[in-house]
Amino acid sequence: VKGAVLLVGDELLGGVITDRHVAAIVETLSPHGVGIAAVEIVPDDEEAIARAAVRRAAECELLVVCGGIGPTDDDVTRQALARALGVPLREDTAVRRGIEARLAERGVGPESAARQSLFPEGTVPVANPVGTAPGFRGRLGACAFWVLPGVPVETREMLRQVADSLPAVREDQDRERIVATVGLGETRAAELLRAGAFRPPAGISLAYLPRPGGVRLRLFAPEGFSRAAFDEAERAMRTILGDEALPRATLVESLLVELETRGRTFATAESCTGGLLGARFTDVPGASSVYLGGVVTYSNRAKVERLGVSAEAIEAHGAVSEEVAVALAEGCRKVFGASLAVSVTGVAGPSGGTPDKPVGTVWIGIADGGGSGAERFRFPGPRDLVRERTVNKALEMAYRRTRRAAG
Amino acid sequence: VKGAVLLVGDELLGGVITDRHVAAIVETLSPHGVGIAAVEIVPDDEEAIARAAVRRAAECELLVVCGGIGPTDDDVTRQALARALGVPLREDTAVRRGIEARLAERGVGPESAARQSLFPEGTVPVANPVGTAPGFRGRLGACAFWVLPGVPVETREMLRQVADSLPAVREDQDRERIVATVGLGETRAAELLRAGAFRPPAGISLAYLPRPGGVRLRLFAPEGFSRAAFDEAERAMRTILGDEALPRATLVESLLVELETRGRTFATAESCTGGLLGARFTDVPGASSVYLGGVVTYSNRAKVERLGVSAEAIEAHGAVSEEVAVALAEGCRKVFGASLAVSVTGVAGPSGGTPDKPVGTVWIGIADGGGSGAERFRFPGPRDLVRERTVNKALEMAYRRTRRAAG
Repeated sequence: VKGAVLLVGDELLGGVITDRHVAAIVETLSPHGVGIAAVEIVPDDEEAIARAAVRRAAECELLVVCGGIGPTDDDVTRQALARALGVPLREDTAVRRGIEARLAERGVGPESAARQSLFPEGTVPVANPVGTAPGFRGRLGACAFWVLPGVPVETREMLRQVADSLPAVREDQDRERIVATVGLGETRAAELLRAGAFRPPAGISLAYLPRPGGVRLRLFAPEGFSRAAFDEAERAMRTILGDEALPRATLVESLLVELETRGRTFATAESCTGGLLGARFTDVPGASSVYLGGVVTYSNRAKVERLGVSAEAIEAHGAVSEEVAVALAEGCRKVFGASLAVSVTGVAGPSGGTPDKPVGTVWIGIADGGGSGAERFRFPGPRDLVRERTVNKALEMAYRRTRRAAG
Repeated sequence: VKGAVLLVGDELLGGVITDRHVAAIVETLSPHGVGIAAVEIVPDDEEAIARAAVRRAAECELLVVCGGIGPTDDDVTRQALARALGVPLREDTAVRRGIEARLAERGVGPESAARQSLFPEGTVPVANPVGTAPGFRGRLGACAFWVLPGVPVETREMLRQVADSLPAVREDQDRERIVATVGLGETRAAELLRAGAFRPPAGISLAYLPRPGGVRLRLFAPEGFSRAAFDEAERAMRTILGDEALPRATLVESLLVELETRGRTFATAESCTGGLLGARFTDVPGASSVYLGGVVTYSNRAKVERLGVSAEAIEAHGAVSEEVAVALAEGCRKVFGASLAVSVTGVAGPSGGTPDKPVGTVWIGIADGGGSGAERFRFPGPRDLVRERTVNKALEMAYRRTRRAAG
């Protein structure tokens, strides 16, 4: 299915909000065989939206339009689609009563329900389970179109309805395999595969998808390709990569499964990442089977009082030091009674750097039944990047330690 | 400056990676007066990239191309730009030596440096401070173009160089004002402004930018608009919105400044959010002036041992309950010695829901010198959405409590 996306909103062109639509649309719809052939961003202008919708509908089979259907005057996507279709807007009274009821719950008057109950004649309202504005769907010539709200969380929820409207992709059309790696750069991965004389079978393409935590390798097969040959190619790649290939799609899921398999528990102690490591680990449903908890010791006092780091060690070596990283990991393991604990202490920036410990300096500590230790890193980039890389490295260290640990 | 963006990569069209480029480009370049008029995603295909580059360059003054310049065979953007320019590729030996040195540090052989040292004749290499692949820039007809790597963290860093190449926007060209609100929906904000008889001065447009934590209101003025009238419009809007208007651009920054102003400290206790609340608060540089730390009490044992919640209370009411939320907030405030503590305990899903406490049920507790309490919420949507909304609501409660607290 050839798809196109139209994103509506001055705010997207003006840079005041972050576009998360394209990624969500591609992620939700590509498993249903939709390939997005074009993405266009248009302003909140009736004429511009109508023109773009007509043009894209002529080129593709599925058009997803996001944004411009809210209750306020600057939202004109309803009008634009009516114009593109050459039909008037009609009120849907059932929808109107539903919106009024929702608004009344929040103590908001009914005035704004009127605009959001209007739909181009011949289109069908699409329920919005997480917000007020319903979407609508219809056909523009041979192209099926869906108009969804621009609020990313609502768009994402409603995309499921678009996906549900599409035929399920059959098993033998599963044309993609992803092998995630841990801490492996694109260049090094290519070298390993070259050294291992890996060549994808004829017809299968190999792509390198760089990621901060490690490149992902993607095999893509043509339609109707032999499943057995595909399986064999993935196996060959995994054999060459050995321990660098992750058993699951992400590092967090791989760490979780390795801990689960070994009956181990996990805890975290964080300073500069402020909770991001725990948050990343608990992104995955089921984390509670191994994750006991964590402490964010943002202040020195918290390091001492919460995790028993000695004030003398902080005084002598500074909070960002090998000694404190090790003490944090050991203290964290002890207070939570965990098999494995990881700690993070660093200078995320933009201020706080010194000649000895410039911004980006991070110590990551680790403690388990086999002992404890810490490694020093220097991550380049701004605050959020330093924090992200720190979390990736801490997860990598926890993963490697768990794999190496005996049974 | 009329700009266009070309994103290169099968993986973007195939949905295997998340596009974070458009947002980053718009955010970085719009303060320099660049308006992105078109975004196009193209596959890793020399012909397709070359064709799209030529077409977009004819329409605009600045073209940013992201992706397809890595060391592996599937990357062909260098070749494509050479084709678009009608010139050969030439090796830059200084760049090559630099890449080889970087690769050697990582124990990677020099083979892959060759591809990344090739640039279309007449273009200029662009340094990559956070990765291996340098970019390049040049002109296609009247259009200035920049080719950047597709790794989001590298793209983002290198966009600064694009921004630096553009003339700074003069003070009187500052044509945008954003007023962020707390917990205010688009509909309610429009009602308040209507009730307050707010009308933007002629020529100024008002847009509603919905966000999970509260709508943002954006005033946009034409070029050369009177700064005084603009200031006056923003002031009028803030007066009508009263306490619903945030003093800073985001809720976190507003909470931080309110705590700082009052000389107060802050701590967090998290269960289902796993550290996300602490991570969000410490996203902002300077959080350490008020944030003492937090505890992630993911297990019941951690709730009891780390924060002194009574095992009986958990037994009697369950971990997701008013009693436990209050005890977590009080315990957290006590152990960190903080002025204000917020706690979160809930069922983020997808499993763990019961008829009494379905997925999305969250209790948020709060404790300060004036007492403690908790509120129950039911957030719709999947796990990550429940977690995001929980964090927004917890920050909102902390903000409102701080504003209301005396002195």
